[in-house]
Amino acid sequence: GSAVLGLGNLGAEAALPVMEGKAMLFKEFAGIDAFPICLANQDTDSIIATVKNIAPVFGGINLEDISAPRCFEIEARLRKELDIPVFHDDQHGTAIVSLAALINALKLVNKSLQKVRIVINGAGAAGVAIARLLRKAGADRIWMCDSKGILSKKRTDLTPQKQEFAVETMGSLADALVGADIFLGVSVPGVLTPEMVRSMGKDPIVMAMANPIPEIQPEAIVDDVAVMATGRSDYPNQINNVLAFPGVFRGALDCRAATITTNMYLGAAYAIASLMNATDLDREHIIPSVFDPRVVTAVAAAVQQAARQDGVARR
Amino acid sequence: GSAVLGLGNLGAEAALPVMEGKAMLFKEFAGIDAFPICLANQDTDSIIATVKNIAPVFGGINLEDISAPRCFEIEARLRKELDIPVFHDDQHGTAIVSLAALINALKLVNKSLQKVRIVINGAGAAGVAIARLLRKAGADRIWMCDSKGILSKKRTDLTPQKQEFAVETMGSLADALVGADIFLGVSVPGVLTPEMVRSMGKDPIVMAMANPIPEIQPEAIVDDVAVMATGRSDYPNQINNVLAFPGVFRGALDCRAATITTNMYLGAAYAIASLMNATDLDREHIIPSVFDPRVVTAVAAAVQQAARQDGVARR
Repeated sequence: GSAVLGLGNLGAEAALPVMEGKAMLFKEFAGIDAFPICLANQDTDSIIATVKNIAPVFGGINLEDISAPRCFEIEARLRKELDIPVFHDDQHGTAIVSLAALINALKLVNKSLQKVRIVINGAGAAGVAIARLLRKAGADRIWMCDSKGILSKKRTDLTPQKQEFAVETMGSLADALVGADIFLGVSVPGVLTPEMVRSMGKDPIVMAMANPIPEIQPEAIVDDVAVMATGRSDYPNQINNVLAFPGVFRGALDCRAATITTNMYLGAAYAIASLMNATDLDREHIIPSVFDPRVVTAVAAAVQQAARQDGVARR
Repeated sequence: GSAVLGLGNLGAEAALPVMEGKAMLFKEFAGIDAFPICLANQDTDSIIATVKNIAPVFGGINLEDISAPRCFEIEARLRKELDIPVFHDDQHGTAIVSLAALINALKLVNKSLQKVRIVINGAGAAGVAIARLLRKAGADRIWMCDSKGILSKKRTDLTPQKQEFAVETMGSLADALVGADIFLGVSVPGVLTPEMVRSMGKDPIVMAMANPIPEIQPEAIVDDVAVMATGRSDYPNQINNVLAFPGVFRGALDCRAATITTNMYLGAAYAIASLMNATDLDREHIIPSVFDPRVVTAVAAAVQQAARQDGVARR
């Protein structure tokens, strides 16, 4: 309950509706019986101990609404110390669907992930996980920004996770965006202006995923971008975690995976992207609908396959 | 998992079928959605911390399969530190149904709870809880025995819970039973002999509740006792916790009780006993069937009433 939606540290009880909703989505989309548990504790070691203590009854653990940076240590230690899948949806679910959307958006503009310059705004759980997964997928030129601007090696206020992405350049978000190919926002409403978008390179891709109000309203820049995506269901290209987590757990549980590996995330992202074939793909359709019934089985199959390749499947 | 049925310390995974079964009974008998959680930890403080951490999602907590004496501290501290009902069924469920059965057995032999001498064999979670509740109900002459004999003030090996019931007398279980009115066993198979039963006072009542094999086989003493009860379904007078816990939680949840009080236990016991009216009551029918549909509603109503009287109801 230390990071409930975009609302912040509201505590365990306030997180319950989110967990209940998530449990319903697990059941509805993937036939998984999930039970919501909210912890009346925000201490890293206590959270880890509690999750380990209650683990025997669970086939997998989906972490949710835990603020950065504590969420990184909690997830990393639980992954190491438990022999069931541990997944922090706010990190990896978001990263998977972001990568899937980006893969398809890049097809439309004929650019390669290896060559584009990507600006990620927001360096919390989602931003860091997106940056890590994009790197694994081959992205080489990532500039991350937090509320103080570009994560620069000259800054002294960076957490270890932010230091992973520190670059030589200093400056503001506006500075970072000049000539950039991609804006990827997991931050707060309204921080992206039309001027900044117009300063980007040719055929810019804007994924403004702050929820429920994106970093910029799509109407403001519809003619200035090649592709626009948000987290909302009332605009085209909804980037929604429900495309990822039900299938990830279905696949991991079906093969009794002992853990979840980065290759399983990558497999999930490519599987989601691959459901949009060349004839269906256009600037308003870069990612399947959350109601596309093929998504869960495609993701689950890819996750199982990656689990077998990585040697973590137990059946 | 430190006291799984009569099988001992088998760990968290082994306790899961018990918890799943209990959850089904909660649902079937009282419409309560219970979720089984088994803790991979047997340290008193860690168990308390874990239960407190996961409490926000639960309306009440039913503790189970935790060995004595740690179960006493765990339950007492959780009752004090949480504002939802915390119930240790191995203690209080057993105590409630034992008192209910005893109330009706005493009617048949025309003896009063205040005057009879009661021998309780077994001084674990159930034995201590039964003794405490019988005292609250007015019983004054209770001798408890453990595997070393009568809990005597002269012994130096007694836990604080056992010291509560220490008496001047020393001796074995056989010594304790000479002239006693009631044998109440929550111990191990076969420790009660026909000779011991024949040494008891007039119209003895024997409740041999070790499960699945009682302290004495009913066939061996059927003609020597006024009333015989066990925990088994294939003999008359089954003393089974399912008579108590579904209704106790139904009543506590319906009035949003902040805790469970001793008066709520007493109310539950009297409610169960009262369902056997004078014309139905005989030596083979001292307690309602576990399938008697009146039980849950009668217990729930009595528990609610007691909660209101004690000022712990919140609606």
